[in-house]
Amino acid sequence: MNQHTIDRLREIVGQDQVSTLPEELACYSYDGTGQEYLPAAVAFPGSTEEVCRIMQLASATPFPVVPRGAGTGMTGGALPVAGGLVLVMSRLNRILEIDPANQIGVVEPGVITGDLRKEAARHNLYYPPDPASLQFCTMGGNVAECAGGPSAVKYGVTRDYILALEAVLPDGRLIHTGVRTAKGVVGYDLTRLLVGSEGTLAIITKITVKLLPAPEARSTLLVLCGTMVEAASLVARILAHHTPCTLEYMDRTALAIVRDKLPFPFPEEAGALLLIELDGQQDAVPHATRQLTDFLQSQPGIVQSRTATSPAEAEQLWAARRAISPAAFSLKPHKMSEDVVVPRSRLPELVSCTEKLSRELGVVIFTFGHAGDGNIHVNIMLDKNAPQEVRQANTAKQLLFEEVLRLGGTLSGEHGIGLTKAPYLDMELDPPTLALMQQIKKLFDPRNILNPGKIFPSQVAPEKNI
Amino acid sequence: MNQHTIDRLREIVGQDQVSTLPEELACYSYDGTGQEYLPAAVAFPGSTEEVCRIMQLASATPFPVVPRGAGTGMTGGALPVAGGLVLVMSRLNRILEIDPANQIGVVEPGVITGDLRKEAARHNLYYPPDPASLQFCTMGGNVAECAGGPSAVKYGVTRDYILALEAVLPDGRLIHTGVRTAKGVVGYDLTRLLVGSEGTLAIITKITVKLLPAPEARSTLLVLCGTMVEAASLVARILAHHTPCTLEYMDRTALAIVRDKLPFPFPEEAGALLLIELDGQQDAVPHATRQLTDFLQSQPGIVQSRTATSPAEAEQLWAARRAISPAAFSLKPHKMSEDVVVPRSRLPELVSCTEKLSRELGVVIFTFGHAGDGNIHVNIMLDKNAPQEVRQANTAKQLLFEEVLRLGGTLSGEHGIGLTKAPYLDMELDPPTLALMQQIKKLFDPRNILNPGKIFPSQVAPEKNI
Repeated sequence: MNQHTIDRLREIVGQDQVSTLPEELACYSYDGTGQEYLPAAVAFPGSTEEVCRIMQLASATPFPVVPRGAGTGMTGGALPVAGGLVLVMSRLNRILEIDPANQIGVVEPGVITGDLRKEAARHNLYYPPDPASLQFCTMGGNVAECAGGPSAVKYGVTRDYILALEAVLPDGRLIHTGVRTAKGVVGYDLTRLLVGSEGTLAIITKITVKLLPAPEARSTLLVLCGTMVEAASLVARILAHHTPCTLEYMDRTALAIVRDKLPFPFPEEAGALLLIELDGQQDAVPHATRQLTDFLQSQPGIVQSRTATSPAEAEQLWAARRAISPAAFSLKPHKMSEDVVVPRSRLPELVSCTEKLSRELGVVIFTFGHAGDGNIHVNIMLDKNAPQEVRQANTAKQLLFEEVLRLGGTLSGEHGIGLTKAPYLDMELDPPTLALMQQIKKLFDPRNILNPGKIFPSQVAPEKNI
Repeated sequence: MNQHTIDRLREIVGQDQVSTLPEELACYSYDGTGQEYLPAAVAFPGSTEEVCRIMQLASATPFPVVPRGAGTGMTGGALPVAGGLVLVMSRLNRILEIDPANQIGVVEPGVITGDLRKEAARHNLYYPPDPASLQFCTMGGNVAECAGGPSAVKYGVTRDYILALEAVLPDGRLIHTGVRTAKGVVGYDLTRLLVGSEGTLAIITKITVKLLPAPEARSTLLVLCGTMVEAASLVARILAHHTPCTLEYMDRTALAIVRDKLPFPFPEEAGALLLIELDGQQDAVPHATRQLTDFLQSQPGIVQSRTATSPAEAEQLWAARRAISPAAFSLKPHKMSEDVVVPRSRLPELVSCTEKLSRELGVVIFTFGHAGDGNIHVNIMLDKNAPQEVRQANTAKQLLFEEVLRLGGTLSGEHGIGLTKAPYLDMELDPPTLALMQQIKKLFDPRNILNPGKIFPSQVAPEKNI
């Protein structure tokens, strides 16, 4: 990007809304992966119109454009691997509408997910998706990655709540997908094609979401199991008869990492913990909780089970759960975090596999996550400055992926492919399916300017840091 | 299609599985619209491999191919408007798998939707989508059209239950989309791009569906309102506090059409009926029913409300509801059935509009349908041999569509665009969005051989009845 291009960008978004200062560029060079790529410039558009004009400029010039929410992504979706412009959506952060009669909301992409949830709650409505980063991450990023979260086991993922999108194509054309209604089948489902497309097809500028009536009550149960395999095998049995709104899992290592945050003494005899929540109408939740408690008493492998006695105790459990990911760096300085998924009946086999890999390769691996979905976060810890550890970690990752696919699973439940999983994409997708996806990318973005180098590794622009 | 092509088809699927006999072609020339277009041939493939080879032949020759389920579609999706080959999927009718532990099923496209529901029920599982034609229509057709049904108000539509697809592209390549797991974000969401694509992008050959635990109990309520507008305005108020699994609506004319099928005396004073069902766990349903009954007693405009006292009475109500569509021909020999949707708070305005159009244009219009979704079937009755009636009906349809869009709605909730709504597509979609959809069609099907003439009117092959 030369000075002329920067000047043109300033004409579009305003003098103060473009920066090429190294200290500012550094702020937008990294994301949740810890990797860093310096862009040539950052811009802060203030309207959809400005996004259109930026993309017209980008496709005419051309230069790469990487849309960015809060940079909390776990696979490098917001990294400007080919340099160019990072488009920070933070000024487009208005909740434009909450419509209680029709239970929908309309937001700009820079709205923090937690803020939408709070605003919905003020109208007694509920936006279910709850990624662990919900207090920081943005709706635009959630849509781009199809974010999940603990509530997905009952409520589904971001995809299930997106009714309509306004988006800017790489050449600057503005499109409107979907409907404001509960149903709609007019033309192809571009809405869901864009959800989860990781910012490679279009820049999302407006999001219409479906909201639900807020659950009136909630209860939290804690189940400690003797072994990880016992905990994993309990999951499918619970879901055959009960509908929890979360069914989270932590292995012994994960528990140990956050031991001083637990609202109970560290359970020496427990190999794994299940954190279960039920929600619903005021008078239905106590009944459902009793049913689940009775059921659990009949199940083998349970060391201890208890119901949180207060919202404060439940919140303490959740604080511990959320602290796992950051606290993991007490084990090793670096982490590979894989959000693999298997059909939930295969969870015991997945858990056995991670134990075996850890033992045989001498790698520190711990697991936690959304057991109810079969979506386990497998964390492979390493020191990237120790070549042997890197080699062993990569071997563990490769063998893990092979096992996941053998079990009928998928390589990513909610983090996406981005940069870090791109080399493994063809393990899961067969050649014609992968080729078709690449053709779709080329159709939307023939000059490969929008978030190049993501999902499909061969599409990295040849010159880095343009 | 010349004799050589027919011979090649016979080599692929077997001598007996291709026909060019006029009496056989006639059976596959029509669908739920009542329109007829004669194909040049019909073939009955017995495997995915045969479908691939047929499409290789079709794209090399080329000739049009129209995939067909049971032909129950309401917008002409299965009509061979450009002649060519009708591909009847009835031999691919196996339920391949019901996996209770993971709550999924795998079926071939020719499986009758009702048969999947029955087989799921044998495992205490539930496949919610329930189009009125569920005893005849096929899963392939349901996926192609993204079929809905009364249960959509609580459970969503076909799209929400499709986890993965196997499909054949127009050039014969086989693709595999989606996952067998609750979550998955590996690559673009081709699954949902194919759902609702009306057989224009690929031929679906295998379908993996999500199943739910079967609801244990159900209750049925009947509410008679003084006027249509009163019934329509009650809908949003009910849904603010209750979660029925169906919330159906019939206007006075619809009620009158099926008066001899009603399990109660025809209510002279009622302008509209709401049919409400609640489902859930055994002990929760009676409680929810009481809550709803109490709520209804506080609402204005209700002439009478009652709970069905037996499953037989409930089934009689449903039989009446399902009989409306076929029984409508007692009013006039032809029907335009429009499945428009509005945000549900705008239902009273939509209903007022249909009453006004009927009055001012002198057209018989009656309405019924999925009020809980804002998805109302507006039926414009006419005699197609009376030019004045055709003119007035077309005017009513155009004005209805304008009002629906003004109210923030969509032209089709579950029937699709097909042939009959194609001329109106650009009322709803703006030019860049429509152009993008056409580009996607061209990417998948550069020779325009797969179900040509649907969704996009300009894509009709120039020569008819090839």
